[in-house]
Amino acid sequence: MNRTIKLAVIPGDGIGPEVVAEGLKAMNAALRDSGVTVEETVFDLGADRWHRTGEVLPDDEFEQISTHDAILLGAVGDPSLPSGILERGLLLKLRFALDHYVNLRPSKYYRGVPTPLANPGDIDFVVVREGTEGLYAGNGGVVRQDTPHEIATEVSINTAYGVERVVRYAFGLATQRDNRLTLVHKHNVLVNAGHLWRRTVERVGQEFPDVTTDYLHVDAATIFLVTDPARFDVIVTDNLFGDILTDEAGAITGGIGLAASGNVNPDGAFPSMFEPVHGSAPDIAGQQKADPIATISSVALMLEHLGLVDEAKKIRVAVDADMEERADAAEAGTPLVRTTSEIGDAVVARI
Amino acid sequence: MNRTIKLAVIPGDGIGPEVVAEGLKAMNAALRDSGVTVEETVFDLGADRWHRTGEVLPDDEFEQISTHDAILLGAVGDPSLPSGILERGLLLKLRFALDHYVNLRPSKYYRGVPTPLANPGDIDFVVVREGTEGLYAGNGGVVRQDTPHEIATEVSINTAYGVERVVRYAFGLATQRDNRLTLVHKHNVLVNAGHLWRRTVERVGQEFPDVTTDYLHVDAATIFLVTDPARFDVIVTDNLFGDILTDEAGAITGGIGLAASGNVNPDGAFPSMFEPVHGSAPDIAGQQKADPIATISSVALMLEHLGLVDEAKKIRVAVDADMEERADAAEAGTPLVRTTSEIGDAVVARI
Ligand SMILES: CC(C)[C@H](C(=O)O)[C@@H](O)C(=O)O
Ligand SMILES: CC(C)[C@H](C(=O)O)[C@@H](O)C(=O)O
Repeated sequence: MNRTIKLAVIPGDGIGPEVVAEGLKAMNAALRDSGVTVEETVFDLGADRWHRTGEVLPDDEFEQISTHDAILLGAVGDPSLPSGILERGLLLKLRFALDHYVNLRPSKYYRGVPTPLANPGDIDFVVVREGTEGLYAGNGGVVRQDTPHEIATEVSINTAYGVERVVRYAFGLATQRDNRLTLVHKHNVLVNAGHLWRRTVERVGQEFPDVTTDYLHVDAATIFLVTDPARFDVIVTDNLFGDILTDEAGAITGGIGLAASGNVNPDGAFPSMFEPVHGSAPDIAGQQKADPIATISSVALMLEHLGLVDEAKKIRVAVDADMEERADAAEAGTPLVRTTSEIGDAVVARI
Repeated sequence: MNRTIKLAVIPGDGIGPEVVAEGLKAMNAALRDSGVTVEETVFDLGADRWHRTGEVLPDDEFEQISTHDAILLGAVGDPSLPSGILERGLLLKLRFALDHYVNLRPSKYYRGVPTPLANPGDIDFVVVREGTEGLYAGNGGVVRQDTPHEIATEVSINTAYGVERVVRYAFGLATQRDNRLTLVHKHNVLVNAGHLWRRTVERVGQEFPDVTTDYLHVDAATIFLVTDPARFDVIVTDNLFGDILTDEAGAITGGIGLAASGNVNPDGAFPSMFEPVHGSAPDIAGQQKADPIATISSVALMLEHLGLVDEAKKIRVAVDADMEERADAAEAGTPLVRTTSEIGDAVVARI
């Protein structure tokens, strides 16, 4: 097959450029001999750019990005910026404008990884987080700011259209896994949105008779993630609850340094964006201390999304083998100490 | 001192009546020889009442409850009811109408308690959860219900008035503890509400120069609760984030069977309400299997709130001693197996 993929690369801030470099190395290794050529365009966006030019995401750059087939993002954000600027202006802007309604976040426990849990068990689930609605929609406002009469609101927007498409995706994913879907919400308090989600799961579920569904309030879900995380297969939830649960999931599986994610538009109407769940970690930036596995696994999600299933599998197998090697070394009392690029090289060598 | 306390008791559903019985036993033991008399009025509210009469909380009963000095609640809720009926109509109704703006939820790890964490460490913090605003305000609605064009909204309401009073309370509490206050929010996304909370903590903090403050996004807070819960002293946060964090806190300290809470109106304008964090657990109701410690500790919070500090301390000391006995027995390989009322009796014997 001869195919060219146009990839927009946003290395971003902090450890972003370091982990993205390894992600690209793994991608190129997996695509060798595949007939697939990747044309990379690097976009200089993030904190540095903002400090230099005051720009977050100019319209023409957004337009250019959206002509690509996929986006690989490292991490954006720096404490030197006012909070919200890059999050709302860049990251969420891309997720919303490119209609990334499925935020896909797999959680897997690899043997030997240091975890705060006494018995992590066999953790292997995927959170399907809605990505274009909820409290992330940017609705709300402030009246009488900085007075004793200030009122600040945040509005969670939930539509039948938006909920149904992500719920249908989650059911489909469950059929490719263990056929179990858990809806997480808080319908005893958020009765409007909660009941829309619940009714939608019930209705769409009729099209997926093999999938067993259950429901947890978000507070109970945070308990089970700690006491019995192996119980989950696919979790579907809204934007904010998904944000919270996936960070907790990262913690129990040994740190968000390993957690991959995809901001996916399954319809292919817009390019999907793949990024590690972790942030820019400015404290260790430029020191080759970051673990690139989260980014490398995000690249695997990306290749899969692009239909390059065998190539994605090569990366997954290599990552699994690397994690096995780490576990063996740790068990032998000689834990591996490697730089970011050494880890990338080790994965590439296995591909 | 001669004093009469009018106590409204809402045993509620499931295990509620069983644990409340033990809470009252402990209360009466602690008040013996104190000169304080408690006049209890029991209110038959909850799922049974709703099934029998269709009533949740009639106005006249609400009026009666509000003439009391304090409220002790077991648990309400049953899967046989439509979700939200008792939560919004009874529990949240009381919290809101009685202006319980401080939802006080201490978390403490007792040695020997089974915890999912490999190294729980010295967990001892208090979450001060705002109780009268946020997404719990019941704002929002549904348009075009049950059509493909349905829109459901939930509005988080945050006022300078509401945020400031709970933040000030949290700072005060920190000065009685380890002088450390952590604000948890998500101000990089919920910019309106988040910045109000942040500015308020900064401003009020100037009145409390001894208190060190820091900030965590809610997603990061769920990570630290698992990886380093001993880092926290006082956490202040909004209604929904507080709901989520306190359930996770219950999980890491060995189950919400031990977690006490107070819905407090610190101004004393309305009676405050004390309840275990756990729910009605219908699966084990009536079997004397529930641990009454959460309710007994809630009674201690109540006595403290009523100014009966020495009497509250008697309960706390007795609970601590009981927890020590459990730990010793578990370590000796002969874990205590006791009914709900046997645990209550053991605590009473120590008071
Ligand atoms: C940086 C922030 C806006 C983002 C989010 O809240 O979605 C992050 O926490 C994530 O989970 O990708
Ligand atoms: C039952 C429910 C309404 C309640 C809440 O969400 O506040 C409970 O979870 C709690 O934490 O007290």
